[in-house]
Amino acid sequence: MSVSADSAVHSVAVIGGGQLARMMQPPAIGLGVRLRLLAEGPDVSAAQVIPDHLVGDHRDLDDLRRIAEGCSVVTFDHEHVPPEHLRALADEGHVPRPSPDALLYAQDKALMRARLSELGVPVPAHRVVDDPDALDQFADTVGGYPVVVKTTRGGYDGKGVWVVEDAAAAAEAFAVGQPIMAEELVFFARELSAQVARRPSGELVSYPVVESRQADGICKEVVAPAPELDAALDHDARTIARTIAEALDVTGMLAVELFETMDGRVLVNELAMRPHNTGHWTIDGAATSQFENHLRAVLDLPLGPTEPREPWSVMVNVLGGAVEDLEGQLPIVLDAVPEARVHLYGKAVKAGRKVGHVTVVGDDLARTIVRARRAADLLEKGTTR
Amino acid sequence: MSVSADSAVHSVAVIGGGQLARMMQPPAIGLGVRLRLLAEGPDVSAAQVIPDHLVGDHRDLDDLRRIAEGCSVVTFDHEHVPPEHLRALADEGHVPRPSPDALLYAQDKALMRARLSELGVPVPAHRVVDDPDALDQFADTVGGYPVVVKTTRGGYDGKGVWVVEDAAAAAEAFAVGQPIMAEELVFFARELSAQVARRPSGELVSYPVVESRQADGICKEVVAPAPELDAALDHDARTIARTIAEALDVTGMLAVELFETMDGRVLVNELAMRPHNTGHWTIDGAATSQFENHLRAVLDLPLGPTEPREPWSVMVNVLGGAVEDLEGQLPIVLDAVPEARVHLYGKAVKAGRKVGHVTVVGDDLARTIVRARRAADLLEKGTTR
Repeated sequence: MSVSADSAVHSVAVIGGGQLARMMQPPAIGLGVRLRLLAEGPDVSAAQVIPDHLVGDHRDLDDLRRIAEGCSVVTFDHEHVPPEHLRALADEGHVPRPSPDALLYAQDKALMRARLSELGVPVPAHRVVDDPDALDQFADTVGGYPVVVKTTRGGYDGKGVWVVEDAAAAAEAFAVGQPIMAEELVFFARELSAQVARRPSGELVSYPVVESRQADGICKEVVAPAPELDAALDHDARTIARTIAEALDVTGMLAVELFETMDGRVLVNELAMRPHNTGHWTIDGAATSQFENHLRAVLDLPLGPTEPREPWSVMVNVLGGAVEDLEGQLPIVLDAVPEARVHLYGKAVKAGRKVGHVTVVGDDLARTIVRARRAADLLEKGTTR
Repeated sequence: MSVSADSAVHSVAVIGGGQLARMMQPPAIGLGVRLRLLAEGPDVSAAQVIPDHLVGDHRDLDDLRRIAEGCSVVTFDHEHVPPEHLRALADEGHVPRPSPDALLYAQDKALMRARLSELGVPVPAHRVVDDPDALDQFADTVGGYPVVVKTTRGGYDGKGVWVVEDAAAAAEAFAVGQPIMAEELVFFARELSAQVARRPSGELVSYPVVESRQADGICKEVVAPAPELDAALDHDARTIARTIAEALDVTGMLAVELFETMDGRVLVNELAMRPHNTGHWTIDGAATSQFENHLRAVLDLPLGPTEPREPWSVMVNVLGGAVEDLEGQLPIVLDAVPEARVHLYGKAVKAGRKVGHVTVVGDDLARTIVRARRAADLLEKGTTR
């Protein structure tokens, strides 16, 4: 007797149809995991590649219920699902992973800063401020302006973050109508990212700490592992990620974005409880990708090894630019850089939008960087810098 | 201004919804290629993971037309599409790759043997026989029985192939009602497979020659590269694959299954003009997988590098066995062999059916074989040999 393939298959509901959900599909195919997508539209990035998708709104509890129904667990492409909806799903017997209680710290920067401070995890000086006077007072405690102001919820890729020279310049932030977090402006040497995957049963694996290079508030390049990273800082970064994952009971992937300061410390900048742009290199450069380990983790399956396949992996984002027909550039890119691993997201090209990425792996760092940039430039600009 | 992602996207029609079509989807996702599937049923292996699929019959020209409409090219999960239908599609302006003229040699063993003989490619002694008397006469020319008899069309995985001790034993073969090919029974040292990818523009890349280990006529294990392969035989095998690809104007992947004879020669056994079981190791073990290079080749995109990522890759098929709930075995398999790359096909388990495969890569051949077998056994039998 044989059973239907359906009867025992793991199924994962994914909220949000962006490139992160899209990139969960290849490892889901391998593991025989069925993804079920709540998509913003019928042809968004992930809906193009996941047959079982519904079009709906992640802010609508009924849409969330429709997608969760019958799935083993519910996970996320982004952190914008209202916390009260996630609690309602959990109360009804669905299994959001990460849990609503954990995810809250990736949704609300004020709660995150407060909780990490309690845990003794180093973070920039910060304070929730209600008005320009309170901002002035905070600025005095950190040696004056410039300071950073952020909306506590909803920002991403540099949106909802301002560096201000005085309180008047924070008018746009206050106008959002949310609590505003003021933070010291950290003069950092570079940005790092530490990623871990963690299962409900407690197993945790760490990826190598990487260097993330930003442009205009958006991640542009990632080098894995972070070149010449001091062993003590590497240890600190991994320990911080593990501490946060365990203390907040995170399940799935956790990315901890860090500042490496000029005086050799690390401070936590942001958290993401999902696959993250700083981990895209793992698809082609690590023994198990962050997307596969996210699926394994939320399904409480044993996690895969995280070691690099080659000494260096360089990931360069492809942002919307001069080239509108990305697929039309493939003959040029693959001819010029045959070893490039190209990932296109099936998105319409808009200026500055993340529409794809390229990874090159190798044993020579300088060459690997040059080759990855060349491939990304050819996709983005149709020419090379 | 931005263009719709749809407007310029490459689209590939794939005929047949088995695991080969399924495994084309991960690289299609990366390259932004849209697959469009003609599936045997609504939930066959590839239909589970390719949103744009139609249920239809590959022997029905109208179904073939429906799936080809609007696609850049048409390619295949199997070689069972009637040649006259492929010619009709080509005459109507569709672009089957490989072409009908090339594919014919993977569809008809008599034509293949005749053409390879013309090309000077070494093949076993063979003759098309119409009746038992002709079979007896052929047997006399190769030193007597046992000899091999095969249907010239439609066989796969050992089906349509018999080893017979006398003409009476070939009754089942003659009863099929097709021309029957008689061949000498080759006492081979082992079976090899040489794969190349070739573009319409002529670019060709070769994968390392691998060893294929069969059980009951079905590929069970592949070791890449073939251990201790004589350099001259390696050269011969690659040259044969290149010669065939170029002479028959093959586009896409070509697999040439070979016998390595006891006296140190190679003879061509079978051809397949599509991704092949002996190339599944390339997903996890080569710089570019056979599925990606098949898509690149049929779309006439530059081909990717084929070198191994690690010294050894071992692929073991998972055949339908004692375990009915393959997904339910994942916790055990991934815990016992964390480095195993597991690929499940979403198929109902039936005795002897290919329902998945496992690949392990490493630098120690014996250990890599043991680990890959252990993972496959746990999936197949729920225990280890």
